[in-house]
Amino acid sequence: MEKVSRAAAERLSQYLRSAPRLADDDGMVSSVDLAKQVGVSAAQVRRDLAAIGHVGHRGIGYAAATLTAAVRTALGVDRRWRVVLVGAGNLGRALIGYRGFAEHGFDLVGVFDADPAKAGGRVDGLDVMPLSKLRTVVEKARAEMGVLAVPATAAQGVADELIAAGVRGLMNFAPVRLKLPPHVAVIPVDLAVQLEQLAFAVRLGDG
Amino acid sequence: MEKVSRAAAERLSQYLRSAPRLADDDGMVSSVDLAKQVGVSAAQVRRDLAAIGHVGHRGIGYAAATLTAAVRTALGVDRRWRVVLVGAGNLGRALIGYRGFAEHGFDLVGVFDADPAKAGGRVDGLDVMPLSKLRTVVEKARAEMGVLAVPATAAQGVADELIAAGVRGLMNFAPVRLKLPPHVAVIPVDLAVQLEQLAFAVRLGDG
Repeated sequence: MEKVSRAAAERLSQYLRSAPRLADDDGMVSSVDLAKQVGVSAAQVRRDLAAIGHVGHRGIGYAAATLTAAVRTALGVDRRWRVVLVGAGNLGRALIGYRGFAEHGFDLVGVFDADPAKAGGRVDGLDVMPLSKLRTVVEKARAEMGVLAVPATAAQGVADELIAAGVRGLMNFAPVRLKLPPHVAVIPVDLAVQLEQLAFAVRLGDG
Repeated sequence: MEKVSRAAAERLSQYLRSAPRLADDDGMVSSVDLAKQVGVSAAQVRRDLAAIGHVGHRGIGYAAATLTAAVRTALGVDRRWRVVLVGAGNLGRALIGYRGFAEHGFDLVGVFDADPAKAGGRVDGLDVMPLSKLRTVVEKARAEMGVLAVPATAAQGVADELIAAGVRGLMNFAPVRLKLPPHVAVIPVDLAVQLEQLAFAVRLGDG
């Protein structure tokens, strides 16, 4: 498992998303169809799945249900995760309202904001707490992940507080590169990259 | 250019982001350093850049400035794009406030919402217009891209209206797969994939 690169993990996510949709009436999906959907070679699909110990049946393909279970285990989404969110501004509030968190096994156990005007309020049934409570809540709930929906200037400080409280993974929406200890993982959600990909795709369409 | 796959385009975005940071005092960056940063092989970096007609100097590397210019041209972000945004809810408002749009060459030329209570208001200095004005505004401004920050149930209908008005690229934040004509590009921004990647990375850290 330690050999699965981040790029491979991203492809695994895409196989997970595609497999149920591509399955035939017998619940089978081929590496060729997965490859087409994700934009890699069929050999790459087979290598990625073999790397997580999942081998298909030659000439038949993969059972979609078994494949998705194996990918979920490999990605670590065969369990639930406890998450806190910092920043109850527009983006934070949108994320709190995003049902995909719970659907994908991520339980929001605390919401925080530095702004006293926001802390004390409620968003979608969750109390917005002041940052001074962050450490206690994270420790008590044993939260493992933090979502940073704070301004770029505040992100590093909040990240440091989350890590001191025991958080080991950050999803960073702030457009800033965080300095983090090696045991902490971070996923930057970079809208700039997405915009570039859209420009590229529209330009190709102009052919 | 037509040969650049979407996966390659994503790597190009990452080289673009990394090159200035990795450049040495002479402004040079090596394929080895780019490869390490992005998590691919140095040969892959050289292939990706050769595919857009950019070749480095053996033993010296790439001039970061020339490399970023070539990548920007290849991605289509060497020009400005006109964008409309539909959905002035929490996520839409967050996106309107996201300075990265303009910084990366994407000019917001119109904001729309189906809700009469929101249409007529202003967000960050932009008028929120009713959906009935969408077609006229898109056509007049010759907007090329649309950002969908609407609920899943509304996304297809809004996408159809945008396309009828001439939009050729969509950034879709609604968690739904859109049916689109072949000349229209779409970039789904899937937070579920990001969450899975974070789970994977945290799990690796437990190693």
